[in-house]
Amino acid sequence: MKLRIKKLNLFTGKPVCMIHEEKAKEMSLHVGNRVEIKIPHGEEIISVVDTVKGILKPNEILISEEIAESLSLKNNDLVEVVLSQRPHSIELIKKKLKGEKLNKKEIKDIIFNIANNSLTEVEVAFFVSAIFVNDMDLEETEYLIDAMVNSGNRMSFNGKVVDKHCIGGVAGNRTTPIVVSICAAAGLIMPKTSSRAITSAAGTADSIETMARVDFSVEEIKKIIKKTGACFVWGGALGLAPVDDKIIKIEKIANVDSTPQLLASILSKKISVGSKYILIDIPCGESAKVSVKEAELLKEKFLFLGKKFGLKIKVILTKGSEPIGRGIGPALEMKEVLKVLKRVNSPIDLEEKSISLAGEIIELAKRAPIGKGKVLAKEMLDSGKAYKKFEEIIKAQSGKIIDLKLGEFSYEVKADRQMKIGHFDNKILNKLARIAGCPEDKYAGIYLDKMKGESVNKGEKIFTIYAESKEKLNHAINYFLETKQIILDS
Amino acid sequence: MKLRIKKLNLFTGKPVCMIHEEKAKEMSLHVGNRVEIKIPHGEEIISVVDTVKGILKPNEILISEEIAESLSLKNNDLVEVVLSQRPHSIELIKKKLKGEKLNKKEIKDIIFNIANNSLTEVEVAFFVSAIFVNDMDLEETEYLIDAMVNSGNRMSFNGKVVDKHCIGGVAGNRTTPIVVSICAAAGLIMPKTSSRAITSAAGTADSIETMARVDFSVEEIKKIIKKTGACFVWGGALGLAPVDDKIIKIEKIANVDSTPQLLASILSKKISVGSKYILIDIPCGESAKVSVKEAELLKEKFLFLGKKFGLKIKVILTKGSEPIGRGIGPALEMKEVLKVLKRVNSPIDLEEKSISLAGEIIELAKRAPIGKGKVLAKEMLDSGKAYKKFEEIIKAQSGKIIDLKLGEFSYEVKADRQMKIGHFDNKILNKLARIAGCPEDKYAGIYLDKMKGESVNKGEKIFTIYAESKEKLNHAINYFLETKQIILDS
Repeated sequence: MKLRIKKLNLFTGKPVCMIHEEKAKEMSLHVGNRVEIKIPHGEEIISVVDTVKGILKPNEILISEEIAESLSLKNNDLVEVVLSQRPHSIELIKKKLKGEKLNKKEIKDIIFNIANNSLTEVEVAFFVSAIFVNDMDLEETEYLIDAMVNSGNRMSFNGKVVDKHCIGGVAGNRTTPIVVSICAAAGLIMPKTSSRAITSAAGTADSIETMARVDFSVEEIKKIIKKTGACFVWGGALGLAPVDDKIIKIEKIANVDSTPQLLASILSKKISVGSKYILIDIPCGESAKVSVKEAELLKEKFLFLGKKFGLKIKVILTKGSEPIGRGIGPALEMKEVLKVLKRVNSPIDLEEKSISLAGEIIELAKRAPIGKGKVLAKEMLDSGKAYKKFEEIIKAQSGKIIDLKLGEFSYEVKADRQMKIGHFDNKILNKLARIAGCPEDKYAGIYLDKMKGESVNKGEKIFTIYAESKEKLNHAINYFLETKQIILDS
Repeated sequence: MKLRIKKLNLFTGKPVCMIHEEKAKEMSLHVGNRVEIKIPHGEEIISVVDTVKGILKPNEILISEEIAESLSLKNNDLVEVVLSQRPHSIELIKKKLKGEKLNKKEIKDIIFNIANNSLTEVEVAFFVSAIFVNDMDLEETEYLIDAMVNSGNRMSFNGKVVDKHCIGGVAGNRTTPIVVSICAAAGLIMPKTSSRAITSAAGTADSIETMARVDFSVEEIKKIIKKTGACFVWGGALGLAPVDDKIIKIEKIANVDSTPQLLASILSKKISVGSKYILIDIPCGESAKVSVKEAELLKEKFLFLGKKFGLKIKVILTKGSEPIGRGIGPALEMKEVLKVLKRVNSPIDLEEKSISLAGEIIELAKRAPIGKGKVLAKEMLDSGKAYKKFEEIIKAQSGKIIDLKLGEFSYEVKADRQMKIGHFDNKILNKLARIAGCPEDKYAGIYLDKMKGESVNKGEKIFTIYAESKEKLNHAINYFLETKQIILDS
């Protein structure tokens, strides 16, 4: 059936189209069915159908901007619309839900169907649940990585291409912009891609976005790297292992990230971007994402899979029981990063961790002998070379270093007695920041006026919650009032 | 924030609203967020947000018909729109995904949030997966039934209120309209509610809808029962355990119906409708939904839960290895039902099973002594009283007995040699009918020109596939050609 495109600047977060009720009846289409929308002799996309009476003529189809962008469609373009068959991969997802093992071809089919949008968000949720509950062994995980890499673009660079990844969970732990700036200043190539926050208050992409663009094409990235040696970009917009971002979007809804998905997400991005020397940082301990025991297990899996794909991987376990830096949230964390790079009021924990990670990468890529990596890293920071490199990259990413504002609604938590801060719980801090609007609301978050070990008098500020709307601030305050164990006395 | 309603006859299958991009920014709302839409001093509904630029003024909100109907909203009505907090029950769903047991309060909270629409379809999919994979014990199932019953309306009738339920899986097995007509003709009260097909080609509601309405209010049902003693209605529109239909809608997507959900779905409807004497039919055997062993287990669970809720339940295991009757699909099955009721070319297997089930119910409610139920049932059929009762009910449901048409696109499967039909596989027949468009396309389905044990000559028809669109017919033909084991030689 040929239909004429109508656009209304409709954003739905996924491909959605609307067809006139009469036409839907004629085509025997029902609300929720899937259709293929094809450009004559060109590309196609799969979309879910809603029906409508008021806005359209029967020969028109209303498409969301997600479809328009994917197929470069304008108003009045003609497209072919046909019913799409229920994809076979739904049966494979059910197989995994039942606890059976999937083979290489089956995993490839599911990933391909997520990539081409044949599976709806509800179906992806079934797949995410299946992995979360029934796990995948290392063989399945290897196939998952392979399928994810093959579903997207690949890049390659000359020189020693290094990378780092932190599995997250520690509030405020924004080392990446600092580490990348140090490594690039030291002459390494570091095409750093990040995903957005899954369970924490901010990811590197969320933070960088407060002062520069993070959504670039592969060609643009190549130019940025050629100019500066490094970048901090969002992986999703690059088309590298694009399925990963679709899966993460669904995982975020119920905060159900699984180990196989974590491994596949990280390694598929690194392989796609052409990285060879990779440092994996696993913060562990009380209130971190994983315990020390789980971290050891994860380390083994990273090393096993790294070998399978010809990567030089080093995995380090770091202390993950307290937040790092005082800011939690995209803009709040960026402010801390700038303090370290500018050498002004530098939060000591964030600085030390960044130097240590950069030192490991420098040694892994043999840019300094073992034991001398940290010295070179600190030199890059103290000499101002890292800050200069950071400025260069931000500029190459169409940005500018600015003084960041914060959410206009705020609430100060004050001490009801004299006390000494014993422990801040990462999980609760992250959750509180998310309720306040993070990571979507970039200027929302938490500022820790006091940190572990510091004394506070009665009536003095302990921390401040920032939000961009009064409602979200109220939700956050309510959550805080219900969850007092966010701060523990020492 | 107060916004003005705009409607465009938009059907999305769930509550969806669209807010102008500018206003969304002002309210700090993002695509995919949840909002509460409230009538001043009145009811409210929770909806997912899309953003839009072209259709709306910034002070307007475009709502889907699902919202308009629920709150009785007209164009230009004013509503209050506020950001809705992420429901706590998402954490409870994650708990169940992790394999932990839920308590009464937790199950109640989840069901309440599904009922008031605070949980999106993706989140319900996580809940469905959790039950499918991790199961629920009988205590959790009891809480689930209780929560489902309490989420909806309740009914009660004078007289002996009987009911039946078949767990399904047998293609063409449309006994319900016949059994209800017989029992009501015999003086029993039978307020039969049915859900739509989950994994099969048609449910009773799908079939009845070919000639009468099935969506009635509680008040209307009471009138129908008062007039005729029985009904065949769709449970969803009645507001009895309404959460059940929302869950079934999601289960259908990946065909993942679990035992606890099956038990809760059936018993919550029966309790809500006020039934006391209930016959449960579990077809089992090769190509049925469950094996004999699984059926025995299920029987125990039904009896245990029935006792908990004060019901008189009888569970019978019937032969489920072959289709019953020749028609598969809403209209095709209805045609078979009419043959039995009219005593013209009555398919013997469908007739015998219907008499046997009605006989059991008659005995359970002590309308006839043990051993005499089938005699009374057959008498109702042969005397024409059952047909008269059927006609009466259809009329009370605003319908009329008509000669049903079939899908205009069809494909005849012919024998490529002389053979004797050994076995038809229910699962494959159901799947084939669904690919042809069942149950949404009422006139799609399969007609078995030959049945088990019948001989067929080379070139003679074995069965016919009907569809309402050429595309769906082609999909069905492709599936048939790939899956030859649909018919087995004896």
